[in-house]
Amino acid sequence: MSLLDRIRTCQIWDRARYRPFRIAGQAVGWVREDFAERLREFPKLFRISAAAVDLDPGLTGFEQRSTASAEALLVLKEQGLVPGWRNEPYPVGGDFYTPPLMQMERAAVPLFGVRAYGVHVNGFVGSGDDQRLWVGKRAANKQTAPGKLDHLVAGGQPMGLSLMENVIKESAEEAGMDAALAGRARPVGFVSYITERSEGLRNDICFAFDIALPDSFVPRNTDGEIESFSLWPIAEVRKRMAETEDFKFNVALVNIDFLIRHGHLSPDEPGYVDLVEGLRL
Amino acid sequence: MSLLDRIRTCQIWDRARYRPFRIAGQAVGWVREDFAERLREFPKLFRISAAAVDLDPGLTGFEQRSTASAEALLVLKEQGLVPGWRNEPYPVGGDFYTPPLMQMERAAVPLFGVRAYGVHVNGFVGSGDDQRLWVGKRAANKQTAPGKLDHLVAGGQPMGLSLMENVIKESAEEAGMDAALAGRARPVGFVSYITERSEGLRNDICFAFDIALPDSFVPRNTDGEIESFSLWPIAEVRKRMAETEDFKFNVALVNIDFLIRHGHLSPDEPGYVDLVEGLRL
Repeated sequence: MSLLDRIRTCQIWDRARYRPFRIAGQAVGWVREDFAERLREFPKLFRISAAAVDLDPGLTGFEQRSTASAEALLVLKEQGLVPGWRNEPYPVGGDFYTPPLMQMERAAVPLFGVRAYGVHVNGFVGSGDDQRLWVGKRAANKQTAPGKLDHLVAGGQPMGLSLMENVIKESAEEAGMDAALAGRARPVGFVSYITERSEGLRNDICFAFDIALPDSFVPRNTDGEIESFSLWPIAEVRKRMAETEDFKFNVALVNIDFLIRHGHLSPDEPGYVDLVEGLRL
Repeated sequence: MSLLDRIRTCQIWDRARYRPFRIAGQAVGWVREDFAERLREFPKLFRISAAAVDLDPGLTGFEQRSTASAEALLVLKEQGLVPGWRNEPYPVGGDFYTPPLMQMERAAVPLFGVRAYGVHVNGFVGSGDDQRLWVGKRAANKQTAPGKLDHLVAGGQPMGLSLMENVIKESAEEAGMDAALAGRARPVGFVSYITERSEGLRNDICFAFDIALPDSFVPRNTDGEIESFSLWPIAEVRKRMAETEDFKFNVALVNIDFLIRHGHLSPDEPGYVDLVEGLRL
C-alpha cells in the first residue's frame, strides 16, 4: 500500500467499453456500453450507435433538452437504474465558464460520464512538520462513502453558485463557519480524474481550497453529514492514506496534492513524479 | 496577451516532424527529421529510419554509449550544430529515479529531445495580497535567455546531486545564501512541458521550491549569472507575465503555478482551468 495506490484508484477506466455521449455534436460525457443499450428504450431521445450516444439533435436549447432528458431519467429511476436520486440539477456540457447545454439530476451524472465539479476545502493549523489538518468523518448514513474520512468542508458544485459562494455555503452547513472565516479560504488549484466507481464513471474536477485556521477554531457540523471532526498531525494523515482506503477516494487525491504543495513529500524520493503526474488528467 | 499565452509558449510541438530517439528499444527523446538526416553521418552509432532513431544496440552499458555518443557530438560541434557547449553531462533515459542509460553533453540534450530536469526556487516575503516575490534579472551575457527575468535561484539538474543538494549549491552561487537558509526551501511540485525553442526540443520537468524569507534577507549573486535582484509585489509579477515575455519561458510557467498555489488567481475566472491544465504535460 502506498500513496500511489490512492492515485491508481482514480485511474480505473476501460475506455474501450465506453461511447462518447454527445449533445449537438459536442462530446460531453461517456456512456458505458451496457447502459447505452438500455437507452434504446428512448428512441426519440437518444440515437445509439456503436460509435456514440447522441442526444436527439431535434432537441434544441437548454430547457428542451433538460425537460426531455428528465422524463427519461424518471423512467430509469423507476426501474432502479438511477440509485440515490437527490433532486440536485447539475450542468452538462460547455466548459466550466460557458453556459451548459442542459442540466441533469446529479445521481444520473456518473451514468453519462458527464464532467462534474466540486469544492474541497482543507483546514489546517501551523506549517512544516508541525502542521495539523482537520479531518471529518462522514456520517454512517451518508449516501456516498458513509463512514469515510473527509476534508473540513467539501461539496458538489450546483448550478447557479460561484465556487467561492459554494465554499461559504458548505462551510456554514458542514463546519459551522461564518462567512468571514470561510471567506479566508484560498483557491490553490484542482485535481481531476476519470475513474469507474459503483455509481458509474466519475469525471470530476475537484477545486481545492486551503484555509489557515486559528488554534481556537473548532468545527461544528450542522447538516448531519459529518459525524465528527478531529485535528490530525500531518504525518498521521499521510500514514493513514498510504496504508488504508479510509479516506474517500477523491479526498485522498486532494490531500496528496496538499502534501505536495506544503512540502511534505520529497521529489528526491522515488515515486514523487508519478504521484504529481497522477493528480490531474 | 495573457497568462495563457505564457502557457501556450510551452506547448509548441509539431510531433509529426519528430521521430522517437531510442536506446535499447526504450524511447528516451525526440529527434527532429532534419537533425535525424544529419545523424546518417554516423552509421555505426545511429540506425535511422522513417519511424525512429535508434542508438546502435551493439553499444551496451552506460560508459560505452556515452563515450561513442560524445565522439559524434564533438564532430557535430565542430560543424556548428551543437551551439553553446557547456561541458556538463546530463543523464539520458530511465526515469528520474532509475540509473540513466547514458550521459550526454547538456547542449546536445534539446537536439535529441531528451527529458531534462531543473530546480526552480521562488523566494517570497509575506502572504496574500501583500506577498512579494524576489525576481532576478539574468546577465546580458548569459548563454540562454540573456536579460530575461528569473527566480531567486534556478539551475539545471546535473548528474550526481540530489535535487535538494542542487538547490543548496545553486542558492549559494546565484543568491549568496548559506546552506542553513537555503535548506528551508520546501518542495512544492513541478511543472513540465515539451516545446520547441531555438536550441531544440525542450522536454523538461522543473521541480519547484518555495522559500519564505525574512524581510531582512537580500540576495547577492556570486557567479555573475544574475545582474540584479529586486522584490516585486505579486500583482506586478502577474501583470508583467500577462503583458510581456520578459520572464524566461519556463520561469513564467513555474510562476503561474506559484500564483495558483498561493491563491492569487480565482477559479471562478474564465481561463483558470486551462491555466492549471497547462502546467504539466
